[in-house]
Amino acid sequence: MVKATGQWTVDACDALTGPHFSDHPDYLFRPYLGPAHLNAVEQVSAWMSEAGMTTRIDGAGNLIGRYGDGVKTLLIGSHIDSVRDGGNYDGPLGVMLGVAVCAALHAAERTLPFAIEVYAFGDEEGSRFPAPMLCSRAVAGALTLGALEVADAQGVGLAQALELNGLAMSRFLDARRDPADLLGYVEAHIEQGPVLEAEGLALGVVTAIAAQIRYAARVTGVAGHAGTNAMALRKDALAGTAEMILAIERIAGAGASDLVGTVGRINAGPGAPNVVPGEVSFTIDLRAGTTAVLHPAEAAVVEALKTIADRRGLTLHLDKTHELSPSPCDEGLRAKLSLAVAAAGVVPRDIVSGAGHDAMVFSPLTPSAMLFIRCKDGISHNPLESVEPADADLALKALLHLIDQLEAAYD
Amino acid sequence: MVKATGQWTVDACDALTGPHFSDHPDYLFRPYLGPAHLNAVEQVSAWMSEAGMTTRIDGAGNLIGRYGDGVKTLLIGSHIDSVRDGGNYDGPLGVMLGVAVCAALHAAERTLPFAIEVYAFGDEEGSRFPAPMLCSRAVAGALTLGALEVADAQGVGLAQALELNGLAMSRFLDARRDPADLLGYVEAHIEQGPVLEAEGLALGVVTAIAAQIRYAARVTGVAGHAGTNAMALRKDALAGTAEMILAIERIAGAGASDLVGTVGRINAGPGAPNVVPGEVSFTIDLRAGTTAVLHPAEAAVVEALKTIADRRGLTLHLDKTHELSPSPCDEGLRAKLSLAVAAAGVVPRDIVSGAGHDAMVFSPLTPSAMLFIRCKDGISHNPLESVEPADADLALKALLHLIDQLEAAYD
Repeated sequence: MVKATGQWTVDACDALTGPHFSDHPDYLFRPYLGPAHLNAVEQVSAWMSEAGMTTRIDGAGNLIGRYGDGVKTLLIGSHIDSVRDGGNYDGPLGVMLGVAVCAALHAAERTLPFAIEVYAFGDEEGSRFPAPMLCSRAVAGALTLGALEVADAQGVGLAQALELNGLAMSRFLDARRDPADLLGYVEAHIEQGPVLEAEGLALGVVTAIAAQIRYAARVTGVAGHAGTNAMALRKDALAGTAEMILAIERIAGAGASDLVGTVGRINAGPGAPNVVPGEVSFTIDLRAGTTAVLHPAEAAVVEALKTIADRRGLTLHLDKTHELSPSPCDEGLRAKLSLAVAAAGVVPRDIVSGAGHDAMVFSPLTPSAMLFIRCKDGISHNPLESVEPADADLALKALLHLIDQLEAAYD
Repeated sequence: MVKATGQWTVDACDALTGPHFSDHPDYLFRPYLGPAHLNAVEQVSAWMSEAGMTTRIDGAGNLIGRYGDGVKTLLIGSHIDSVRDGGNYDGPLGVMLGVAVCAALHAAERTLPFAIEVYAFGDEEGSRFPAPMLCSRAVAGALTLGALEVADAQGVGLAQALELNGLAMSRFLDARRDPADLLGYVEAHIEQGPVLEAEGLALGVVTAIAAQIRYAARVTGVAGHAGTNAMALRKDALAGTAEMILAIERIAGAGASDLVGTVGRINAGPGAPNVVPGEVSFTIDLRAGTTAVLHPAEAAVVEALKTIADRRGLTLHLDKTHELSPSPCDEGLRAKLSLAVAAAGVVPRDIVSGAGHDAMVFSPLTPSAMLFIRCKDGISHNPLESVEPADADLALKALLHLIDQLEAAYD
């Protein structure tokens, strides 16, 4: 029985597990258009109905629950697919909070001047087809048919998977919404990071989804016998790389709090205990909420790495492999969300999302905002994902307060 | 035709290449007891005879050329096996210098109060059987039969390989020499490092073969999303390891010139560009000519690594996987060699050998000394190995001067 409480939203996420709601017997794995996904759509649809909503499935396989009516519609969305061996809350919690919002309005017999539609997107993670956020991109009109020519690891094409689920590729783009009809897009999601927990805050207001730059770096020195090469005469590619890793850490740590820099992968050759490494390759991932923060940090990193390589007589090769613009949240909607968080009794804390979300797809289309919910130890994409029901309750209160504000401001 | 010149010793090493003297058609590979090894024994034996020596093969397959006679014998040795895709001089140059020494004595019709025996050891590199220096250990009496129960990568046992070469396992240990008969052991070898070249010196006098300590280190932090984990809250195992690598480099670089420290192998997990590394494993190799230098450096490294781990909230696990005592060269013989180097017109430069050599096997048995010869760019175990004939000539002069001193001091 749907209840308009944080406890219910957490319980509902927990209920969407086990063999019926996972395509793997040992852990949670709910990819887009698999049997578990269909079962989840059926279950969530039942909860939506209980919460006083009418439900439908769009051309992209998204489940939509609609509450009330009006010229304009406020979208509340998140995804119900999961990564392999994922947790219970990354995605579903945002959907359940949308359902709980409507359940609260329904219980209070509230009539709003606008409709609310809760979207349970079928794919955000890209854990089946190598193209994440297919479903939200369809709704935002940010897809071409060419982007749909994808197949999963078993060679099943998207067209075939849609047909097996009673859908049709030719109708996929019909999921698109006209921005003129939309009041905005709101998404609640677990933080997937440790910041809120470290600061003792249940909620955070997302200012932007981070801009991202990625490099492949290669450092070349001279390999040599570990016993016979005096320290002063070495050109040790790994020692040089170590200095570069610390420079990246130092630059990112000295910058704005939303600036992060990571070396996640490293390979040192020839890789024998008794040979000084002659060549090292590694990756650099830099992110920040704005390019105003990111670009100077990028320049500082490149400069620092070149200086280290020059001083050590090493050769540095940098290849920029990836660049993503930031997706800022709407200032007006974000201000209302901050007010709503404060009304729920939580000090509003601006936070940049370092990870991508469906909300970034909507920000060019309609005013978009995101509410982050504290998660235990910052863990996500892992069965250890954990959320306090009390935190979910505060999120529910904040979302309801946001709707009150939107109602009051509606003209 | 054997000539008592440095040019001849280099030419002779160069002549021991090509299909007849290598078991691989494309590069030099002369493993113990292979066809190329037998051909090399035959060729070097012929050169020894030309140089006025009588030759024999001992139970371990070592070729020995004896010049003159006496109650005591001075050994001059090195090895004629090679690593896979090796260079021409690592090993053979020391043997050829021994032959050239005898050729010079023979040409001058010199009669010494002691015999000289030049050993061409069959195995030093361990490039066939997984047990290096089998042949010099047999001569030094530092082997048990159990150590001979080894097989090559094709499954051919040492016993079988010996039989195929007309030798017998039961006679292997007969190669042992009685220390009472020996005057000392001298080995000339390329430096395999860049120190002499950097200092503009053709020769170096080895003070000791380095003590060596090896660790396997494991650093555990917390893996996390590269976008959502704020810098200040990370426990990045790779950033911590980077600081450790620099600490090892700093401690080794600040110590005595013979102290070296190397991180040659590193693995960071999970190893994705967008994930903060949660666990890193790496190797530490520390060497120095004396334990008086090595042990305080080891303690400083362990202390520094623990401090870094503690400060960063990382877990450090250190496993000492290998420890080798230093093999000091004989002080008396070394003083004579220094005098001989000076007489050859080279400023005597003491140098620690970071690599192992047959000489380390002899140092517990009989006064041992080693002469290092400058090699281009410090390169060894590589076809690019290169030695100047003029440098080999200086080595030859120094060895002859050493023999003059031993003759003068003989009682």
